[in-house]
Amino acid sequence: MGRGGARARRLIVVSNRGPVTFGRDAGGDRVARRGGGGLVTALRGLVRQHAVTWVASALGDEDRAVAAERAGEAVEEKAGDGSTYRLRLLAHEPLAYDRFYNTVANPLLWFVHHYLWPLARAPSFDRELWEAWNEGYVAVNERFAEAVSEELEAAPDAAVLFHDYHLYLAPALVRRRAPAAVLSHFVHVPWPASDSWHVLPEPIRRAVHEGLLANDVVGFHAERWRRSFLRTCEDIAGASASPTDGVVTAPGGRTRAVVAPISVDVGEYDELAHDVRVLAEEAAIAAARPEFLVVRVDRTDPSKNIVRGLGAFELYLEEHPEMHGRVGMLALLDPSRQDIPEYAEYLAEIERAARALNGRFERAGWRPLDLQVQDNFPQAVAAYKQYDVLLVNAIFDGLNLVAKEAPLVNGRDGVLVLSENTGAHEELGAWAITVNPFDVKGQAAALAEALSMPLAERRARAGAIRRHVRAHDIAAWAEGQLAALDVAVGARAGRIIS
Amino acid sequence: MGRGGARARRLIVVSNRGPVTFGRDAGGDRVARRGGGGLVTALRGLVRQHAVTWVASALGDEDRAVAAERAGEAVEEKAGDGSTYRLRLLAHEPLAYDRFYNTVANPLLWFVHHYLWPLARAPSFDRELWEAWNEGYVAVNERFAEAVSEELEAAPDAAVLFHDYHLYLAPALVRRRAPAAVLSHFVHVPWPASDSWHVLPEPIRRAVHEGLLANDVVGFHAERWRRSFLRTCEDIAGASASPTDGVVTAPGGRTRAVVAPISVDVGEYDELAHDVRVLAEEAAIAAARPEFLVVRVDRTDPSKNIVRGLGAFELYLEEHPEMHGRVGMLALLDPSRQDIPEYAEYLAEIERAARALNGRFERAGWRPLDLQVQDNFPQAVAAYKQYDVLLVNAIFDGLNLVAKEAPLVNGRDGVLVLSENTGAHEELGAWAITVNPFDVKGQAAALAEALSMPLAERRARAGAIRRHVRAHDIAAWAEGQLAALDVAVGARAGRIIS
Repeated sequence: MGRGGARARRLIVVSNRGPVTFGRDAGGDRVARRGGGGLVTALRGLVRQHAVTWVASALGDEDRAVAAERAGEAVEEKAGDGSTYRLRLLAHEPLAYDRFYNTVANPLLWFVHHYLWPLARAPSFDRELWEAWNEGYVAVNERFAEAVSEELEAAPDAAVLFHDYHLYLAPALVRRRAPAAVLSHFVHVPWPASDSWHVLPEPIRRAVHEGLLANDVVGFHAERWRRSFLRTCEDIAGASASPTDGVVTAPGGRTRAVVAPISVDVGEYDELAHDVRVLAEEAAIAAARPEFLVVRVDRTDPSKNIVRGLGAFELYLEEHPEMHGRVGMLALLDPSRQDIPEYAEYLAEIERAARALNGRFERAGWRPLDLQVQDNFPQAVAAYKQYDVLLVNAIFDGLNLVAKEAPLVNGRDGVLVLSENTGAHEELGAWAITVNPFDVKGQAAALAEALSMPLAERRARAGAIRRHVRAHDIAAWAEGQLAALDVAVGARAGRIIS
Repeated sequence: MGRGGARARRLIVVSNRGPVTFGRDAGGDRVARRGGGGLVTALRGLVRQHAVTWVASALGDEDRAVAAERAGEAVEEKAGDGSTYRLRLLAHEPLAYDRFYNTVANPLLWFVHHYLWPLARAPSFDRELWEAWNEGYVAVNERFAEAVSEELEAAPDAAVLFHDYHLYLAPALVRRRAPAAVLSHFVHVPWPASDSWHVLPEPIRRAVHEGLLANDVVGFHAERWRRSFLRTCEDIAGASASPTDGVVTAPGGRTRAVVAPISVDVGEYDELAHDVRVLAEEAAIAAARPEFLVVRVDRTDPSKNIVRGLGAFELYLEEHPEMHGRVGMLALLDPSRQDIPEYAEYLAEIERAARALNGRFERAGWRPLDLQVQDNFPQAVAAYKQYDVLLVNAIFDGLNLVAKEAPLVNGRDGVLVLSENTGAHEELGAWAITVNPFDVKGQAAALAEALSMPLAERRARAGAIRRHVRAHDIAAWAEGQLAALDVAVGARAGRIIS
């Protein structure tokens, strides 16, 4: 497991969703299917370089079967490129996991992170929500902490890399059992301000902060989120924080907050651009496309701001009758978290708005909006290649990987219209047309500006984005995290000695 | 006008709602009626001490008639205590005022200040909202700035006291015409974090900050809101801010942010406690009340969190069958801003929740909830006198005057249950039972704790609150503001000389 070389090290990666999920093929044999999500893609690179044990939740029946067969022990797994790693799947009690995932992590924490709660009405910490917290989120985090602690007993020199908002409590629980462990946490979502954390009762918001502050390093995708974290540590955890070096000093110790925007596996996208399935989808898009194509690719998550995006396109069409028949929007939406009522309602709203738009403007031979609700990754990459304008108008977004993936493979020097509230805006804003996500009129104006931009300017902007992403790819992200961990642990060792 | 004495000074008070509104009595004669709202009450004290010119919007037809007769000049008015002041009413263009008040100030800015927007859906800056901003809020602020500038030409030594979220743009407009003027602004609402200001497109949130930073002093009710203001000035206006002295340095100059929680006219409440109308209302409440009475007094504003408060009382009743028949809630709600759909919907929700609660628990001789939706100030004061528990569970609240008014006149050493998100919590939290506004279970537990608190502890806590409010009454608030203005202007003079 792992490769040789001076930089190889032992890592324990901890995330709710693992790199593979197990299923059965047509012949009834067990197969490992590559898991979805940008995080898993990003972390997969670590497996090539280091001796990785991955701790994750067992998601489906076959995952649970694997976990049961191994009685909680890790299994040896082989990644797509032939490198090996250990995978430890945690089979949680089903009701606890449902509360953990479908009530607390989503929507409660996700909505807090993205400012999505309509606070006059929701959330309410009634008996059920408190139970979901105590018997769901706390219980699952304890289960994770137990497994990580056991792995650390076997390999005390391993560094632990926790990921995302599912696992805020685990680090402090691990720290209690392994005071000298090297712990880090990466937060992939926006870090909201203290007032938003006040949506959670004091014991909960304090536990979240104390959990994170048990790490040596906490990472964010943007300086904006790091700055917010330093402030909430002061407001909520009574810590002192230094904006210059990002060090938070709390009763339990010191934590360094770092900025390391996640990125794309450039090589993978170079290959995908020529993948036969992508080429087939692209041929279909190319055959049907109008002269100008606006593309959006998102999960159907309220944070993605799809309804206002449709409103902006509708306003653009209203103001630009000369473009009727010449411009179209292709919206590829991956249906997301449909077990959660807020998500099902949001998808229904999207579909209503889409029907209204087409009902208003469609004419023989031209349908302005092509809305497709399905999970079709080759089609998404094909759309990336074909856009003239890429619309990313998220309400809030930790990073937004689409804004990095799509320009890499786009073949038309398409223009990026980018929400100021995405983490990616800190990196790419200079070459994008910036929009405020609530400003539908401004988004319509941005579409007009993008669709009439001279080709030379399109080329210059698109080229700059491509060069930036190629120079800051996923390998740099993973190694940057490990380097930050070395700095933090070095500082801790120094302090202990002095 | 004004009284003699060393401390009397010329003041220009600027607020959307003036100290009186004009109407006609039964005989058809013009009468000035005392305006509502805590701000007007608080500022009325200034009239006794200083030479005040008050600039406010003409609200009704008779106000507009007065403004028209004077062709924009001020009228001499006599306050209830015989002191005189000048009143200048601004008759805005009706459509502009409607957009200013009913679209921008409420709900747009009010909801931003109190985190009430359901951001997945609203607000949207469509064409109408942009027009409301430009032709409503901007236009009305320009009209105010013009009037204040004219008053300053006549009295350049006067200090200007702007008030609240209706008038964020006026100070910068005045500063342009009167660079040496002494300007201050008091913000009576919570100051939200930068991310909440990002609900407003960049030109708008920047204009709000630049408007406020044209003042020498900006005041808040709580340290929490001041700290938030210092942060947003850095994030949004590119200023540098010092948390120690509250000085914000921006390209346009220096502004000092101060904390001065508004308070109550103690003398007025001492009198009200024996007012005949109050005594009559109190007799009615006393005759009907059960052994234990929980009281809430609020406008029907979503920020007041009335529905969750009913949920908490319902949960309390569910968990305490032994108290059925012995405890009741009296909710006195002043219907608020019913021209605004969000407010009308919220009142309907309150009424549904109230019916559900009584439907579930009412029995012969005992109705657990008495919900009264009307504006009846003597009845509110009577309820203040009668509560065993006062519930103030606001989602967010700049101060919350009820939490100060009611304990002053309460005759039963009642217990204050107070939201941690009110400005008043910084002053009174130590003697209240603190609740998180989203924690319905926690609020039910707080009601249980309050209703079973030993009398000695009730007495100690209630006495401490009373003493605090008496020691920090409204006179101290007004004079504190003027003293802060002197400090800031002194500092500015020093800087100009040096």
